[in-house]
Amino acid sequence: MDYSIQWNKWKHVTKLDPDKNNSRELIKEVRDSGTDAVIIGGTQRITREKVTKLLEQVRNICGHHLPVVIEVSSPEAVVSGADAYLIPVVLNSGKVTWLVEAHRKVMQQIGELLYSMKGPEILIPEAYVVLNPLSAVAQVTESRTELEPEEVLAYARVGERVFNFPIVYLEYSGIYGDPRLVRMVKEGLRYAQVFYGGGIDSAAKAKEMARAADTVVIGNVVYANRDYPLNDLVSAVKGIKNKAPEGANV
Amino acid sequence: MDYSIQWNKWKHVTKLDPDKNNSRELIKEVRDSGTDAVIIGGTQRITREKVTKLLEQVRNICGHHLPVVIEVSSPEAVVSGADAYLIPVVLNSGKVTWLVEAHRKVMQQIGELLYSMKGPEILIPEAYVVLNPLSAVAQVTESRTELEPEEVLAYARVGERVFNFPIVYLEYSGIYGDPRLVRMVKEGLRYAQVFYGGGIDSAAKAKEMARAADTVVIGNVVYANRDYPLNDLVSAVKGIKNKAPEGANV
Repeated sequence: MDYSIQWNKWKHVTKLDPDKNNSRELIKEVRDSGTDAVIIGGTQRITREKVTKLLEQVRNICGHHLPVVIEVSSPEAVVSGADAYLIPVVLNSGKVTWLVEAHRKVMQQIGELLYSMKGPEILIPEAYVVLNPLSAVAQVTESRTELEPEEVLAYARVGERVFNFPIVYLEYSGIYGDPRLVRMVKEGLRYAQVFYGGGIDSAAKAKEMARAADTVVIGNVVYANRDYPLNDLVSAVKGIKNKAPEGANV
Repeated sequence: MDYSIQWNKWKHVTKLDPDKNNSRELIKEVRDSGTDAVIIGGTQRITREKVTKLLEQVRNICGHHLPVVIEVSSPEAVVSGADAYLIPVVLNSGKVTWLVEAHRKVMQQIGELLYSMKGPEILIPEAYVVLNPLSAVAQVTESRTELEPEEVLAYARVGERVFNFPIVYLEYSGIYGDPRLVRMVKEGLRYAQVFYGGGIDSAAKAKEMARAADTVVIGNVVYANRDYPLNDLVSAVKGIKNKAPEGANV
């Protein structure tokens, strides 16, 4: 495998949802936040038009300095022009669809195109373990979320050692997860990059998960009412001291 | 990935079934046939005792010159001492068990042991596509075998490009397959080694499939009544001229 995208150096990633309101101001804020990459991805109401529009917006505003990757959670998300394509495989799904069938169908559509391309790999498989039973992704994929810690670790190790996936993605989508479990999984693996996603809406949570996982993914908070800039979350993840509040005597 | 076993140089492999009668004479014949490796594997009535016994028999008779790998189609087949472990993932199975759950359960049992080991990789994942609906493996895995050629190719490409598996295994178990389909899959892939298994019971079939696949697996014929030595099949696969029949004027 030779990936042109160095996802293994990403500490902080921002996931933008094509189904949400991505204003010019918001994308500028993401660009200036210090995040390491943008993932375009979502679970619901994804259309080719929305993905194309968001990719163009991000490219126009961020140029090619910030890597932009598309997470192919639906065939509609297969839109050319991204730096790479993350391919989720949901290991704890109860349906073969989310393990291989959706992938087989997309491959049948785009296989000839994909295999005619030269150059380095641009498909990056992700071993997802979905952990919030109430999330849209858990419900769509019928994931088995009631897992003992050793089951979560075993899924992660299958992702790393049987499937040889470069990324293990612990997805709490919508709630804040258990940092001890995340850290236990990270320490129990040897090569894979551990992505964490879910419920990060403060610098304190961002910092805590940054200690447990290799890469922290920021999602919904981007669209929420915030009384702080996105930069605060990036700084927390990267261990950069926040600017002192005005008037503070540092 | 750094595998100590050079499966990608194997042209001819012999699969021995722990549930069958593996006499000393038979294993000697395999050893002397010129086959490139022995796979210990089977679908039915596999027990740890049978696998251990067969591994010992093969090691005693063949020494360490012939690679011996175990195909882990059941947790019972996890027996230490083989040169490597092939891990089948049945891409066209209708059950999550054969895609990830069986693997997760075994990983939960042996994960700590596996992760405490140093040295090169000894787990080699195989992207299986099971194609004979009447075979035991198709029935056990509830595989969807009624596939168009482009579906078979799409599964193989998912195995190679999404899962990054080094081996794609077209399994006709019990019947002789379609060499045109096998060749089409091989030509449609870029990196993966294409294993073919099923119904090879003559030098002509061995030769034909050797032209279509990268590696030909010989299984049931080993145990059948034969009027020729196993060496004939190896010679056919490797393109070595068979000895002329006695009395022939060559």
